[in-house]
Amino acid sequence: MAVYTEVSDAALAEFLADYDAGSLLSFKGIAEGVENSNYLVRTDQGQYILTLYEKRVAAKDLPFFLSLMDHLAANGVSCPVPVKSRDGKVLKTLSGRPAALITFLDGVWVRRPRPDHCAMLGAGLAQMHIAGQDFGMTRENALTASNWRNLLESSSQSDVDAIAPGLYSELDSDLHDIEVNWPKGLPKGVIHADLFPDNVFFLNDRLSGFIDFYFACTDAFAYDIAICLNAWCFEADMSFNVTKARALLSAYNQYRPITAPEYEALPILARGAAMRFLLTRIYDWINTPKGALVAPHNPNEYVKILRFQRGVKTARAYGIDP
Amino acid sequence: MAVYTEVSDAALAEFLADYDAGSLLSFKGIAEGVENSNYLVRTDQGQYILTLYEKRVAAKDLPFFLSLMDHLAANGVSCPVPVKSRDGKVLKTLSGRPAALITFLDGVWVRRPRPDHCAMLGAGLAQMHIAGQDFGMTRENALTASNWRNLLESSSQSDVDAIAPGLYSELDSDLHDIEVNWPKGLPKGVIHADLFPDNVFFLNDRLSGFIDFYFACTDAFAYDIAICLNAWCFEADMSFNVTKARALLSAYNQYRPITAPEYEALPILARGAAMRFLLTRIYDWINTPKGALVAPHNPNEYVKILRFQRGVKTARAYGIDP
Repeated sequence: MAVYTEVSDAALAEFLADYDAGSLLSFKGIAEGVENSNYLVRTDQGQYILTLYEKRVAAKDLPFFLSLMDHLAANGVSCPVPVKSRDGKVLKTLSGRPAALITFLDGVWVRRPRPDHCAMLGAGLAQMHIAGQDFGMTRENALTASNWRNLLESSSQSDVDAIAPGLYSELDSDLHDIEVNWPKGLPKGVIHADLFPDNVFFLNDRLSGFIDFYFACTDAFAYDIAICLNAWCFEADMSFNVTKARALLSAYNQYRPITAPEYEALPILARGAAMRFLLTRIYDWINTPKGALVAPHNPNEYVKILRFQRGVKTARAYGIDP
Repeated sequence: MAVYTEVSDAALAEFLADYDAGSLLSFKGIAEGVENSNYLVRTDQGQYILTLYEKRVAAKDLPFFLSLMDHLAANGVSCPVPVKSRDGKVLKTLSGRPAALITFLDGVWVRRPRPDHCAMLGAGLAQMHIAGQDFGMTRENALTASNWRNLLESSSQSDVDAIAPGLYSELDSDLHDIEVNWPKGLPKGVIHADLFPDNVFFLNDRLSGFIDFYFACTDAFAYDIAICLNAWCFEADMSFNVTKARALLSAYNQYRPITAPEYEALPILARGAAMRFLLTRIYDWINTPKGALVAPHNPNEYVKILRFQRGVKTARAYGIDP
């Protein structure tokens, strides 16, 4: 939970004067989101999210993220879109930060996804991948396999081993396998790259949309699927729920058929996806100052997911028969 | 900023099923409020605040606070009111905490109040005092003059002196003066007791209402005025703005005439009010753990307010001629 940058009533009034967004009724800081500061702004015309981009989001990437939301929404994907100011801009400055006013998306994220949620996620993810295919911009994945060794080595062996005994060597060995076997030439396009349950909203048991595109990039579609397998298909006790995985993959496959090379690559992609989130969680766990507004995720659940994925030989382990 | 208790989508749905409040569209934790956890809940019928009462608010006091909001609203004071569930209750349990669904009050709090804001505050405060006069319940002020010495002595001299050299002795001597001179027999009734700018909303330059009645109690009306003099009439550099004080007192006086004994008591009440907020800030400053969600207020601004009020001999210093 976080509001890193405070916005005064006077600064907000001045900011809103540049938009045809109605007159202000209320605004409240939201205790969600880790990377940016978010405010819920209500005017007589409706409800908006005001986002102030903090230093972990590169300003040069903001046009990619904001244009992507526009493009996806224009192509049938339900997601928030940036509001244009009177002079046609979507990116302004507020309290010294890059800032955007964004439409509000109704819905609630599901703390304990069921198989039917996973199916709706799979269908929605495939539709998002298709809708992004003619998006004109690209952005390299800043957190792909070739970056992970640097991330591991930025922590000391003793700090990493304090999380779980022997963890550093275990990751070092896993990283070697992943680097050697990382697939090339898979179908690529725009992926969300952070599609955890808190970034997917549901309303009346229907998927109502996706939020938080601030890790989106150009990468293998199947890597996005692999991230979702890890984020949606493990139970609270970290056991893998094959029914949820089957629901996710089958529904995805109906909208965008998964190719044979993609099926074959899924286990290594899922192992890599586990590595990627484990490494950033380890980094944050070690480096978050004690007084921080955001408590870091405990890395241990991703240690368990990584170990599971290490043992997977074929995509059959995910409940499907390619 | 704080959400201490997490609420799951499933627990919220079950909670809302007890109300005729419409079907859920969204809910977000709010990064405001120090004592309780607050969520903004939107349904197809409107917007609500869901408050989970944390341990600093005594459960036995909740009926007083919630009934007071109802009483004040019924008597023309703009404030949020608790929503009754289908079985007529205003207090339920959610995620193991006492919880209430409360109507949403439009408006924005003013970071830098002007004299006209202070005048609207004064008028609104007097109206609130009058509206509370026939409220049937009472609640002792748990933070009144006789409790302050315990509060000071709960911190060590060295911890207090670390905030400002010699502060402990200074407060000890002030407390002696305040205890000896604390007024008795002033007109009493329900007071808000925490009417800082963030608890007063404005909309289109009109006062739109009061929030956060969780320190409300039965005490001298003039003590509430004194709290506001400290909270609204000092500039960022801690200089006293006599124009704002005059605006506040004159407007108050038009709705509820300030009596001669109240005028006479104002300087000692304001000195006491400064002491009360300084002591709780010192306590929180010393005792808030490093990893806490809420950063404690720096006590130093109230040291300056206390020193100013110590030098005030008559209410003429507040810009009025009683």
